[in-house]
Amino acid sequence: MQKPLILVTNDDGINAPGIRILAETLSHLGDVVIVAPHTEQSATGLGITIRQPLKIHTYTGHSFESYSVTGTPADSVKMALSVILKRTPSLIVSGINRGSNHGRNILYSGTVSAVIEGSLREIPGAAFSCWDLENTQYERATKHIPSIVKYLLEHPLTPGTFLNVNFPSNKHPEIKGVKLTRQGKQYWLENPSNRSHPTENDTYWWLGSKLAAYDDLDDSDVYWLNQGYATAVPVFVAELTHNDSMGRKSHFESFLEAL
Amino acid sequence: MQKPLILVTNDDGINAPGIRILAETLSHLGDVVIVAPHTEQSATGLGITIRQPLKIHTYTGHSFESYSVTGTPADSVKMALSVILKRTPSLIVSGINRGSNHGRNILYSGTVSAVIEGSLREIPGAAFSCWDLENTQYERATKHIPSIVKYLLEHPLTPGTFLNVNFPSNKHPEIKGVKLTRQGKQYWLENPSNRSHPTENDTYWWLGSKLAAYDDLDDSDVYWLNQGYATAVPVFVAELTHNDSMGRKSHFESFLEAL
Repeated sequence: MQKPLILVTNDDGINAPGIRILAETLSHLGDVVIVAPHTEQSATGLGITIRQPLKIHTYTGHSFESYSVTGTPADSVKMALSVILKRTPSLIVSGINRGSNHGRNILYSGTVSAVIEGSLREIPGAAFSCWDLENTQYERATKHIPSIVKYLLEHPLTPGTFLNVNFPSNKHPEIKGVKLTRQGKQYWLENPSNRSHPTENDTYWWLGSKLAAYDDLDDSDVYWLNQGYATAVPVFVAELTHNDSMGRKSHFESFLEAL
Repeated sequence: MQKPLILVTNDDGINAPGIRILAETLSHLGDVVIVAPHTEQSATGLGITIRQPLKIHTYTGHSFESYSVTGTPADSVKMALSVILKRTPSLIVSGINRGSNHGRNILYSGTVSAVIEGSLREIPGAAFSCWDLENTQYERATKHIPSIVKYLLEHPLTPGTFLNVNFPSNKHPEIKGVKLTRQGKQYWLENPSNRSHPTENDTYWWLGSKLAAYDDLDDSDVYWLNQGYATAVPVFVAELTHNDSMGRKSHFESFLEAL
């Protein structure tokens, strides 16, 4: 039997340690091919490159078939699926990201958006992120990632759904377990700071970030990460209609007709 | 009584005709301030700028208080909310975009993502897009936009929800009405094409696009746009948990514990 094809990608770029570690930890579960951005693409969301050409480079720094694409994570997945891979992958995995992608943050994330690109075309996926930006201990995550991927290969989620997985901060000495849970509400707001140019009469801003305070759910990724658990949130973005608002249909349409 | 503050933004950039037309058509409904990207930022999704500084320029080409930000649509909304505006807007409107943002496309769209940035912090919003890339007839849209905005100001949607509004192609001589409807399934896939550099031994790719064929819903933006109606889809992205998959909680967690 043919082994499942696993496409490995990220947003920290082809040279990031997290992507090598992710590919290595999954090598016994399938045929691994890496296609990732040529340079770091953090916080590019589901952006794609329509006004510039893209180049594909063979990358020799991994012990896997590996390519870099001079664009965003979504570009990388698109080029992988349309140009590079010889068959459709069974799974797209993204990461391991340096920094968390939990709560309301996830649509900013290139790591998560790479998997969204697959989910819009109903290819299963999982995004993996570690909380800590400094001294990221990827090995804490790789203890759990193979079993999560094994679960997805053996028990696929509803088409269009993916898992968004986060690992808690190193301040928790041990990961207590993995919770399937809901997306929390907490997220990063901007926190702009102003600087002056050294010689020109000119100022500029850094966007910055600060955590927005929210009353969060009792069962959410925000809650369980703070308790020292890893979290797996099933996410669906292939239809985003707000169902409750559909009850306004006649109210809205008759308001407009009356004007 | 203080008039409502309406923040007007887009992804086609501060110089685009669509943003001027949108601001002008709303000027009788509130105090209008324009904050938009300095250059075109189509298809940048919810990307934000974290590795480069941002500059804010006063723009004198509009008859409104107007600023450009050297970043993405989400950057522009963030700088507007944190630095530029003196009070929180009652509504963020984005557009009028040249090109449709319907079906599964919407997370690629800078136009829609500007409004998502507001919706994540529970500021109401509406994105407006015209189907045609060529000979875009914004005036067909402005016949309907004031009444849609009036509805949202008088009858706000659930916090975190926004309206994604599209206007049909000019091939329909008249817009037949405005439907409140669901997000459809159709979307643009990449359609890569390969080129050679004129002098170097080197090839590059354009991402390209082609419509993915989908059986769509009978009541969706895709369906009604094809019938010559404008469509308004209530969209919610502040929580993206796939509810049905939560029923797997014990199955998933016990699978992982058994390994």
